[in-house]
Amino acid sequence: MSSQVKASATREILKVTERPEVISFAGGLPAPELFPVEGIREACDAVLKESGAAALQYSTTEGYVPLREAICGRMKAIGIDTSVDHVMITSGSQQGLDLTGKLFIDEGDTVICESPTYLAALNAFKIYRANFVEVAMDDDGMIMEELEKALQAHPEAKFIYTIPDFHPTGRTMKLERRRKMIELANQYDVLIIEDNPYGAIRFAGESLPPLKSFDTEGRVIYLSTFSKILAPGFRLGWICADSVFIEKYVAFKQSADLHTDSFAQRVAEKYMELFDLEAHIQKIKAVYKERREIMIQCIHDFFPKNIKHSTPDGGLFIWVELPENIDTQEVFMNV
Amino acid sequence: MSSQVKASATREILKVTERPEVISFAGGLPAPELFPVEGIREACDAVLKESGAAALQYSTTEGYVPLREAICGRMKAIGIDTSVDHVMITSGSQQGLDLTGKLFIDEGDTVICESPTYLAALNAFKIYRANFVEVAMDDDGMIMEELEKALQAHPEAKFIYTIPDFHPTGRTMKLERRRKMIELANQYDVLIIEDNPYGAIRFAGESLPPLKSFDTEGRVIYLSTFSKILAPGFRLGWICADSVFIEKYVAFKQSADLHTDSFAQRVAEKYMELFDLEAHIQKIKAVYKERREIMIQCIHDFFPKNIKHSTPDGGLFIWVELPENIDTQEVFMNV
Repeated sequence: MSSQVKASATREILKVTERPEVISFAGGLPAPELFPVEGIREACDAVLKESGAAALQYSTTEGYVPLREAICGRMKAIGIDTSVDHVMITSGSQQGLDLTGKLFIDEGDTVICESPTYLAALNAFKIYRANFVEVAMDDDGMIMEELEKALQAHPEAKFIYTIPDFHPTGRTMKLERRRKMIELANQYDVLIIEDNPYGAIRFAGESLPPLKSFDTEGRVIYLSTFSKILAPGFRLGWICADSVFIEKYVAFKQSADLHTDSFAQRVAEKYMELFDLEAHIQKIKAVYKERREIMIQCIHDFFPKNIKHSTPDGGLFIWVELPENIDTQEVFMNV
Repeated sequence: MSSQVKASATREILKVTERPEVISFAGGLPAPELFPVEGIREACDAVLKESGAAALQYSTTEGYVPLREAICGRMKAIGIDTSVDHVMITSGSQQGLDLTGKLFIDEGDTVICESPTYLAALNAFKIYRANFVEVAMDDDGMIMEELEKALQAHPEAKFIYTIPDFHPTGRTMKLERRRKMIELANQYDVLIIEDNPYGAIRFAGESLPPLKSFDTEGRVIYLSTFSKILAPGFRLGWICADSVFIEKYVAFKQSADLHTDSFAQRVAEKYMELFDLEAHIQKIKAVYKERREIMIQCIHDFFPKNIKHSTPDGGLFIWVELPENIDTQEVFMNV
């Protein structure tokens, strides 16, 4: 499909989603009724009272040190032992993707990714004229035999882009594949971009260690965000990577927007100081779990019987596959 | 100078500016003691009370409509008759520069600019591998005869990048040159990027209409910001341009960071609804005027007599030129 056609298809989709009777399940929007509005109000107040001038002034490109320290604490809790020098704040995880494209991709460079993958990551890398090599997935994530074939066929690949936890298809990469992916990346000397916006939203099953926790060679660049656990409006994400890469990301971010909103950074940090973010996440996970159950029940009750769906253990997505002879665009246009 | 050397020079400068007894006049930092902290606190409160969930949720790439309407009002007051469809919110004016580079510059493309110009604009365009053609200035801004020579020699130039009001040298382009620049841009069919972060901070002399107010062919792309008139920490800027360009900027911004902080956008808009931003600007201009006078007095009293300096009618910069035989880097290192 040409980009022209895609753009107009996207507009058609938006038109439908704007109809008041339509609930769109297309994007990863967190439930706004769960945002801790009152806690954020208290955090705003405290920041402006304690450090109003500093919170409204220009600040460093790397980001507010106490926020980066809090992020290091969160990273440590999932098995990534890091320090503030390895963490840069981004204007949402999307900026992490854009800067990754800017930093690593020259025209025609190869990026290996899951099939399917996150549309906005593809778009970010496409601007820098990447070529994509897609690797098939099954219910346990990217298939490692297929990844090895892709690496053999494309030894020039710049990086593997992967969403191991609660991928848009709702799937999660199983433990032995995580170890295997690191092994392959080491063997074929390729970087891994681990995009992990949803990892903290696990409401069933056992947590799996991130790829980065197995990384002994500094080749995993880990991206995450406050968008799904606190609020996306602030546009607060982060990159955790080897300091060699962080230095380059900082130079590129400086050109891109100087720094991320100083006030939002301090408010998020203050919120975590005043309140228990983990307790908030427990609360939203309980709601998302219940909604997943209702959604799956509805799929069973109201969808045709010849479809397949994933049953995610976390995150915001359920993936539905229709029989091959059905044109989904046609189904959509007849909504 | 290689970029390696430049990076280390910048680090040396930062080291010096971090010494507590040093006041850095290098960057365009507004005076933080003038930030309307209490007004912003009230605006934060009102936004969270009235529309907390929406203010913390994802929002459109173009930006919050009431903020864009308020910007149109400000633009109209300086002679630019525009509408929300021609305005996109950016994450600071720096993002406007970065997206401009991304949108218009391919490797080796020519950008015409003043000599000297804003360092961070050069850096933003350099990432996209622009070639720069510098045009000499005098006390009345870019010299139009020199600009015409540059346009003749480089008919392939993608755009003219200019800061007509209170340029880093403290200079302002005089009225007849503004008309002439538009005439030349029309004649040589080239775009103009009018970077105007300081225009509202005029504390002496008569206001001059922006280049964009003379633009009849949609070839001026106007960039501005709330950084100098409200607070830079929020990273709130805007682009005003023909809708053909805005559509493209929106597509590129979507890949860059999805959208600018929704909360900051609503807080800025609410601040303007609750308080008189113009009155605030009058207040800060009076302080900046006084500081300019003190600074010029100090230059006369304490600087060597063989230097030259500008006497700006606004903005944040005074430009000092040393005699040609003085190595400024050496002077700096002996501070």
